Amino acid sequence: MRELQLDLDPTLGRRAALEAAIRGAIRDGRLTRGTVVPSTRALAADLGCSRATVVAAYDQLVAEGFLLAEQGRSTRVAAVHAPETPARDHNPLGPTFDHDFRPGEPDPSSFPRREWLRSLRRVMSDAPDDVFGYADPRGHLALRSALADHLGRTRSVVAHPSAVQVVPGFVAGLAFLGELFVRHGRGRIAVEDPMLFFHRDVLRVVGVEIVPVAVDDDGLRTDLLEGLEVDAVLVCAAHQYPLGGALAPERRTRLVEWAETTDTWIIEDDYDGEFRYDRRPVGALQALAPDRVVHCGTASKTLGAGLRLAWLTVPPRLRSRVGRTVHLRAGVPSVDQLALADLIERGALDRHVRNVRARYARRRTQLRSGLADVPWLDLSSHEAGLHLTARLTEPALDETSIIAAAATASIGLLGLEPHYAEATTVRERGLVLGVSRIPEHRFATGLDRLLAVLHSLG
Amino acid sequence: MRELQLDLDPTLGRRAALEAAIRGAIRDGRLTRGTVVPSTRALAADLGCSRATVVAAYDQLVAEGFLLAEQGRSTRVAAVHAPETPARDHNPLGPTFDHDFRPGEPDPSSFPRREWLRSLRRVMSDAPDDVFGYADPRGHLALRSALADHLGRTRSVVAHPSAVQVVPGFVAGLAFLGELFVRHGRGRIAVEDPMLFFHRDVLRVVGVEIVPVAVDDDGLRTDLLEGLEVDAVLVCAAHQYPLGGALAPERRTRLVEWAETTDTWIIEDDYDGEFRYDRRPVGALQALAPDRVVHCGTASKTLGAGLRLAWLTVPPRLRSRVGRTVHLRAGVPSVDQLALADLIERGALDRHVRNVRARYARRRTQLRSGLADVPWLDLSSHEAGLHLTARLTEPALDETSIIAAAATASIGLLGLEPHYAEATTVRERGLVLGVSRIPEHRFATGLDRLLAVLHSLG
Repeated sequence: MRELQLDLDPTLGRRAALEAAIRGAIRDGRLTRGTVVPSTRALAADLGCSRATVVAAYDQLVAEGFLLAEQGRSTRVAAVHAPETPARDHNPLGPTFDHDFRPGEPDPSSFPRREWLRSLRRVMSDAPDDVFGYADPRGHLALRSALADHLGRTRSVVAHPSAVQVVPGFVAGLAFLGELFVRHGRGRIAVEDPMLFFHRDVLRVVGVEIVPVAVDDDGLRTDLLEGLEVDAVLVCAAHQYPLGGALAPERRTRLVEWAETTDTWIIEDDYDGEFRYDRRPVGALQALAPDRVVHCGTASKTLGAGLRLAWLTVPPRLRSRVGRTVHLRAGVPSVDQLALADLIERGALDRHVRNVRARYARRRTQLRSGLADVPWLDLSSHEAGLHLTARLTEPALDETSIIAAAATASIGLLGLEPHYAEATTVRERGLVLGVSRIPEHRFATGLDRLLAVLHSLG
Repeated sequence: MRELQLDLDPTLGRRAALEAAIRGAIRDGRLTRGTVVPSTRALAADLGCSRATVVAAYDQLVAEGFLLAEQGRSTRVAAVHAPETPARDHNPLGPTFDHDFRPGEPDPSSFPRREWLRSLRRVMSDAPDDVFGYADPRGHLALRSALADHLGRTRSVVAHPSAVQVVPGFVAGLAFLGELFVRHGRGRIAVEDPMLFFHRDVLRVVGVEIVPVAVDDDGLRTDLLEGLEVDAVLVCAAHQYPLGGALAPERRTRLVEWAETTDTWIIEDDYDGEFRYDRRPVGALQALAPDRVVHCGTASKTLGAGLRLAWLTVPPRLRSRVGRTVHLRAGVPSVDQLALADLIERGALDRHVRNVRARYARRRTQLRSGLADVPWLDLSSHEAGLHLTARLTEPALDETSIIAAAATASIGLLGLEPHYAEATTVRERGLVLGVSRIPEHRFATGLDRLLAVLHSLG
């Protein structure tokens, strides 16, 4: 020990510095297991400090398990397992692009910072103390009430505050529902094919068996549902993702009747029901059968995914099970919930949606007219949502090479093919083009660059 | 239809009011399935509005599936499934008390509102736009860096930002770890007996088989670990819950060596490591074996559970699996993460912990001296955490009757027995008394009332 250099950190107190130095020496292998440390008297003399300081430091290191002090034996170094060198930090969200035409997110620069901060300020000054404690796992009553009213008004959802379950994002809600059906049902859920691949992954992670059902321009092919033996069907009724169609009226009726007859639940992913440009949004499917449909809404497309705020409207028979699953697992910060309730009640959410809807409508028009000149792309005609789907009509071109060419110009694109279930043989090829993600002041430039790349390929 | 009273809401536009009235009539059964609705011309004449208004309303209701319009047939009412009457709203958090001596939460009135709001304000004005979008599922780098430093400083945890995983509460983190071992291991986790019953429930919900291991005043009985064949052991090393002991130094060493030899993970629930009153907190077990221990910390005991902010420090070999599980499921709002990072970096969290620690130390002393006069209670001697454990030494008394007597005086108490695993036959009886939950200005009164109830029982 006398040869061991103990560098004492001068910014710490004497005792803390001594402890840190010994811990460091043990961890980096300079002091190995079983080594007898000097007596407290000797070390105190060496370091020029009081013996009490060394005794206190040794006591602490014994309590922490770095040193062993057994009766009748000298104090010595215990076994300590040094950590591996940490890996380099990487970004698990994948590549970023100067101009990102991938769908799925609103323009983050459009987030209503001032309005949100105003709501936060109100909550922090007005909310009772109990918002800082454990909360009702269904969500704060103030938010559930605001959402019940908001959903009825904007989406025709039939909701009572006791039906609303706040969740930290749609994906968390989907996972909870999947778990519930794995535990209490057959563990099989019918899904649209194509659909957002990420949602398939989430369902599989919680043990769900996926049953893909084909989609056409009128949404889910309800004629294919007979005999499926599933617990639930996951459907985007207002605006199918990625193909873009709304579920046709007669299919809505048929879907609900099939679900009633077979006692199957409908999970309505109403992710972007607020965004329709040619007419008022079609009301939620849930309104046709509130006891049969779990309606799922989210703040991720209207405000931002960073808020981690979404909500389910749950039929009575499922409520206690959903509540119990969520109670044991999740939770959304109460302050954020109350801020959203305030934003809704002040009308600020409605105003924000109107503003961004007008902006996205302009962008869609610009994108549509730009792409009209690309002869090998066939645009979907649906006037809804935050994306356009363009089918590839030129057999010589493939998605991968288009996406790669765009990436070299730092343009982000997403292909249609990955949205199909693995076993599906007939896959349309194309691009799913998001209009929302790019900051407003860069959209025109981004579109020019995108068109330049596409024209260079034709 | 002429007899049907359609009450048009005067606060809505003509068309919206007509749609709402027809939806309502269908939903409450006044308009039944198959009923032919009047022609648009007739209804327009009846209502004194333009025919275009009625056409638009019918179109909307057809799109939503309330009405059916098939070629060559009159428009009629589709099948709509009316909702059940909503159940009365109830509070799933259970009873509330005027004076709540149950453990598990800090005093919500102590939440540092001004400091938190200051941090929120900074984040909302300074943070780049991307905090409002999808985020790194491990947590924001700013918070992971602040936590790595904070944990090293306050708990001797060996942490690099890339090791830190932010989770929405400890329970969510525990569930993720449980899921991971169910999917990739034997699905068996050793736990302390007694322990917080809620955590057993959470592990079972995700499919884990619980293997209880007895605890004494020196913490987990590490001599009982041989041959357990588990994926992990969940341990409160700094302050066992509910019994209160710290894991003895030689058991720390033994636990780590057993884990290394058997390739078992250690999950260290360091829920209240910041609260030690007789000496400086014992450093985390994780420091002895950073590649073997998942260290779990939380803001729930220092700030408030309403924040839903906790963190895991994950060994390298587990990191990608934990990251993937969380990526597909959860997420913590970025603004809250950055606010906590700011609170830590400004030193405001440390200041807050020092303040409440002094307050809880006073309360513990008052509770301890008050309970000294209750002859049938034997207090644990541990000077740590937010609770005291008192064993029942009088065979004629039982937990249930004490808790019931307290409840009639609106005093909340928690018994020791429910903390034992179901199959455990030797259970100590007693009370787990929290000192933190009651607001400061009411603690003295609460303590007087509690003592009055206890003395009335002797």
